Amino acid sequence: MAGNTFGKKFRVTTFGESHGRAVGVIVDGCPPGLELSEEDIQRELDRRKPGQSKITTQRKEEDKVVILSGVFEGKTLGTPIAMVVYNRDIDSSPYYELRNKPRPGHADLTYFLKYNHYDFRGGGRASGRETLARVAAGAIAKKLLEKINVEILAHTIEIHGIRARELSIVEIRKNAEKSLVRCADLETAKKMEEEIIKAKKEGDSVGGVIELIALNVPPGLGEPVFDKLDADIGKAMLSIGAVKGVEIGLGFGFARKKGSEVKDELYLSEGKIKTYSNNAGGILGGISNGMPIVVRVAVKPTPSIAKPQRTVDLKKKEEVTIEIKGRHDPCIVPRVLVVCEAMLALVLVDHALRSGVL
Amino acid sequence: MAGNTFGKKFRVTTFGESHGRAVGVIVDGCPPGLELSEEDIQRELDRRKPGQSKITTQRKEEDKVVILSGVFEGKTLGTPIAMVVYNRDIDSSPYYELRNKPRPGHADLTYFLKYNHYDFRGGGRASGRETLARVAAGAIAKKLLEKINVEILAHTIEIHGIRARELSIVEIRKNAEKSLVRCADLETAKKMEEEIIKAKKEGDSVGGVIELIALNVPPGLGEPVFDKLDADIGKAMLSIGAVKGVEIGLGFGFARKKGSEVKDELYLSEGKIKTYSNNAGGILGGISNGMPIVVRVAVKPTPSIAKPQRTVDLKKKEEVTIEIKGRHDPCIVPRVLVVCEAMLALVLVDHALRSGVL
Amino acid sequence: MAGNTFGKKFRVTTFGESHGRAVGVIVDGCPPGLELSEEDIQRELDRRKPGQSKITTQRKEEDKVVILSGVFEGKTLGTPIAMVVYNRDIDSSPYYELRNKPRPGHADLTYFLKYNHYDFRGGGRASGRETLARVAAGAIAKKLLEKINVEILAHTIEIHGIRARELSIVEIRKNAEKSLVRCADLETAKKMEEEIIKAKKEGDSVGGVIELIALNVPPGLGEPVFDKLDADIGKAMLSIGAVKGVEIGLGFGFARKKGSEVKDELYLSEGKIKTYSNNAGGILGGISNGMPIVVRVAVKPTPSIAKPQRTVDLKKKEEVTIEIKGRHDPCIVPRVLVVCEAMLALVLVDHALRSGVL
Amino acid sequence: MAGNTFGKKFRVTTFGESHGRAVGVIVDGCPPGLELSEEDIQRELDRRKPGQSKITTQRKEEDKVVILSGVFEGKTLGTPIAMVVYNRDIDSSPYYELRNKPRPGHADLTYFLKYNHYDFRGGGRASGRETLARVAAGAIAKKLLEKINVEILAHTIEIHGIRARELSIVEIRKNAEKSLVRCADLETAKKMEEEIIKAKKEGDSVGGVIELIALNVPPGLGEPVFDKLDADIGKAMLSIGAVKGVEIGLGFGFARKKGSEVKDELYLSEGKIKTYSNNAGGILGGISNGMPIVVRVAVKPTPSIAKPQRTVDLKKKEEVTIEIKGRHDPCIVPRVLVVCEAMLALVLVDHALRSGVL
Repeated sequence: MAGNTFGKKFRVTTFGESHGRAVGVIVDGCPPGLELSEEDIQRELDRRKPGQSKITTQRKEEDKVVILSGVFEGKTLGTPIAMVVYNRDIDSSPYYELRNKPRPGHADLTYFLKYNHYDFRGGGRASGRETLARVAAGAIAKKLLEKINVEILAHTIEIHGIRARELSIVEIRKNAEKSLVRCADLETAKKMEEEIIKAKKEGDSVGGVIELIALNVPPGLGEPVFDKLDADIGKAMLSIGAVKGVEIGLGFGFARKKGSEVKDELYLSEGKIKTYSNNAGGILGGISNGMPIVVRVAVKPTPSIAKPQRTVDLKKKEEVTIEIKGRHDPCIVPRVLVVCEAMLALVLVDHALRSGVL
Repeated sequence: MAGNTFGKKFRVTTFGESHGRAVGVIVDGCPPGLELSEEDIQRELDRRKPGQSKITTQRKEEDKVVILSGVFEGKTLGTPIAMVVYNRDIDSSPYYELRNKPRPGHADLTYFLKYNHYDFRGGGRASGRETLARVAAGAIAKKLLEKINVEILAHTIEIHGIRARELSIVEIRKNAEKSLVRCADLETAKKMEEEIIKAKKEGDSVGGVIELIALNVPPGLGEPVFDKLDADIGKAMLSIGAVKGVEIGLGFGFARKKGSEVKDELYLSEGKIKTYSNNAGGILGGISNGMPIVVRVAVKPTPSIAKPQRTVDLKKKEEVTIEIKGRHDPCIVPRVLVVCEAMLALVLVDHALRSGVL
Repeated sequence: MAGNTFGKKFRVTTFGESHGRAVGVIVDGCPPGLELSEEDIQRELDRRKPGQSKITTQRKEEDKVVILSGVFEGKTLGTPIAMVVYNRDIDSSPYYELRNKPRPGHADLTYFLKYNHYDFRGGGRASGRETLARVAAGAIAKKLLEKINVEILAHTIEIHGIRARELSIVEIRKNAEKSLVRCADLETAKKMEEEIIKAKKEGDSVGGVIELIALNVPPGLGEPVFDKLDADIGKAMLSIGAVKGVEIGLGFGFARKKGSEVKDELYLSEGKIKTYSNNAGGILGGISNGMPIVVRVAVKPTPSIAKPQRTVDLKKKEEVTIEIKGRHDPCIVPRVLVVCEAMLALVLVDHALRSGVL
Repeated sequence: MAGNTFGKKFRVTTFGESHGRAVGVIVDGCPPGLELSEEDIQRELDRRKPGQSKITTQRKEEDKVVILSGVFEGKTLGTPIAMVVYNRDIDSSPYYELRNKPRPGHADLTYFLKYNHYDFRGGGRASGRETLARVAAGAIAKKLLEKINVEILAHTIEIHGIRARELSIVEIRKNAEKSLVRCADLETAKKMEEEIIKAKKEGDSVGGVIELIALNVPPGLGEPVFDKLDADIGKAMLSIGAVKGVEIGLGFGFARKKGSEVKDELYLSEGKIKTYSNNAGGILGGISNGMPIVVRVAVKPTPSIAKPQRTVDLKKKEEVTIEIKGRHDPCIVPRVLVVCEAMLALVLVDHALRSGVL
């Protein structure tokens, strides 16, 4: 039973292999009457694209989105919105050498074990290119969320052990997009960049941690007991290939605290109920409480490194050593961040629609 | 759109409020012909129940399960299995004082904000009692998983900052259930117990970290790109009220590593493909690779502490201070562990059925 | 992948075997704040129960519903509503003779072929008793629909070829429940009753046609292109064991008409758009248009007849002849009608919730 | 909550408006390793296309399918298969006159009432062109069904009251595609054609009845109690715009029969259980029994007739008269037949996958 659809009311189905004809997405469940253009989508796609700076891969990808359906006279119809990015000029030849020789840390092995027949070129379906489709769908989600003033912020808070200092919402909003690593602590951002360049020179890669904050989320989003807001956020984040951990609010920090230290007591502020602290990260019992939603995700270093790696030839059934050629990202954290934002937007818009808030 | 169902092929729907008539579950999608008795379920329920030791609440709960349907002549029919635990002799009176005065850190506030009318007695639907139903369903899942030799281990690895040492599978299997905290490092377990008793005396509570390991999981489980095995595990864990973080394999540790350090190279062992290390935690590209699946979850300290707490009277719209009476768990980690096990079993059985392995 | 859940927002999951411990249902997705009592449910169950008249079976069934969850202080909580009817004093002994000897026209054979292990007593899961659960859920659906003034009428229009004359809405509303066959043409109803008594004396059974009319359905219900309102109604009706055909509006009559004869032209009436005729049965393009929704279903004669029937012994693999004992309905049409009503209510309430009308 | 997806394991999501950029479909859940080419799809699309004979519309539509994903080296990957038919050279101008003036019998009115903003050109999303996408998905379903020898036959049995005589499977298989109306009784087919040509001359249209037969369907397909095979077939058929009635086996004929006349007794034939008659149409208790599955659907005459029709101007709120120009089908029955076949294939393949037969 295939799993290429995300969401229950705002349903997103992605398709496409990295070196196939196209990557795309159908969004079913977008309300009618929303103003939407290809530019709205393209803007978000451009934030994700590689080849933008010295710290990312130098591959150029012209990722131009086309809307095939669901929009008429500049507004959504309430019918499925199909969006496609055609793949062009992709050189698949380096991958033919790696055929049947799964790259360690990649999905090559598991796709072979599961499907037997799989598209090994550029990661096929498991490629990061698939996240293009998520970002395209997320762009629509963000436009809907704007209508209820929900704002999503994302910033890099750690790269290979180098941590940003604690920052205010104002700083994050102002500075995150200013640095190549999307770290709003601009001083630390420089160090992170240096660390990435160092890894790049070594043919290595580094991981990090991203923090996401959603502001003005209306209280009441989330559907206990299984489709809790944090449960769906967790699923959304861990559905991104490079993400290996997720925490809400204080997260793993709770393991070192007493109940009395983290209790988020309540008070009234202009008739609204607020909490003095926000250890819960804006979610209680799986339902948003009106405080900022705070999520952190761990991103692994990309396994596409320039060093020889031991693997197994699946057909010959023998151990071999491979080298992965091509230009790869030494650090995908700042690009994954855009995908995390999109996924958070998809969860929030789905739950806003499920709750009748949108 | 309500969210009380979990799973796609092995569908679990729970119902019941803490102080209502009953808590229960329907399992739809269990294959026919599985031997199943109430004892099979009861055994798991008994592991979760409170009042078992000095470190848990002294409330006695007689949680006797009754199977209402789906089993005939000792075997499952392939029809829905309804299981009920009737609630008895519950004293709801202490909760009437707290009516309209949400306990900080609890779901009282958000249930009010979402549903307006809610059952405030004992946490109502948001109570930990709901997890009874999950454990009952998990017991069936485990029986099915036994048929394909999947074994799930769970142990407490941290309580309030006290960490167990690294343990072998053999030690975990042998010792985890021997200590009250379900920590297989029996020496550290003693310290954890002391820490919990100390918190109890102070009217406080402590959190911790649980590690889950699933052995012999067949390769190929997980449905990219959204219903990845790790994504569904993440959702399952975060759908448990007290869980605020989840990581797979090295998890947040990836943020401090280089690609070359965590690469999980492949080799052949008796014709099977294995990895030298298992930083990926048994899952690549969202699909199991045959190595042990490793998951860690962060459990928050229960917010039911015996200290006065500031809150807001929802009807009078004024700030008040409450005290939560009754006997509460100073540390729910060892009980939550049983629920985590059940949820992991539910994810694995659902994906085993989705993949046709079961 | 099991199929015991109906609906997407108002989700109904039934459970229970005819001679097991209980039959019941969980309704997930009922909005909070609806006044609901066991009497509300019981009233509808009583309309379905057998042993009420000379034309139905003389079996007495005490079908008392118990609400286990989801209702507090007389109002729904927005959490799952679990309802159970316990089975009592059922004599299963006659069915042991029929074990492994499937009754022609019954599901015995197919349950054996699909599940191998099945509950043959009283039809097991395939028994008409399962529809109790649907009627219970339908009772809640009807209460919700009342809030938007939707009224569902149902009447028998044909029994074994004897057809009622065309009737006005007023007549149907006034008279349908007055006759034992639930035919609002009281004169014809008498003839139908005689026909049923005649069949009963012969140890035979007869079928018929039921018409359902839903009034005041708001325009806009139905979700093209697959979850069209008529598509979901069709599924709902054909999910009832005895129903073998369904038509909307003119239905099969369209096959004998020209486009110009059935065109449902539009006009304005007090600012509202109406159609001169209603051949479409209130649904266009799968969406309600505000006109009455008209559905007709064909009900087969029950296959439990008192005559010897040829079948096959599944274990001995030989042809045998069986006789079905016990007291069976010579005509289930008036009881199936209550189930059809419930199913129509479930479809309408699900779509009203999906559209945001409720 | 949008409804553009059909099926649970073989999930089909269609998109596209009649005069938009494209119409297409994503198939998620097709197993890997199936040989599949664009020719396989095109063959079925060509059977549906208009402009093929004197009895259909003279519009030429070049409907060339492109597969965008999910197929690699001629075989399916198990990933989503995206297929697109680009719309070209469509003259939308006649529709601008009809803007805000819903055509009677069409979905114009209900799309306006539901979505407010809708694409009125050529029926927009409600156009018959959407069924292209279903036929494309159905072509894949048929290829999968071939692997288990399931054969689907479809033939027209009635046009405007003219009925074909009873035919054998052999005749239907041999002759149905030989006549323009797809009626296997070639003599009656001639009369049907004349009737259609007569209607065309009058600027009118006629409806009819299609019969579908699925042979060699393995026993055990169908998931009680709601996802019964007949329930899902009913939904599939009624999700086609022009279909207004559906019956299984004897269908509405049951209303005129006694139980003793329609009892489908069992016997053994070469170790297999068969029934002497097949009034049940191959389905008992919602599960296939191995006998041929027999379905009949009623198709309404297309409402696009060349006569003046009364409607309402939605903006000006006044009654007006319109004339629908352009070349329309006087009888869509033979084209709808291809769509019915596709939908039946989709239901069968979905259930075959759900049951583990495929």
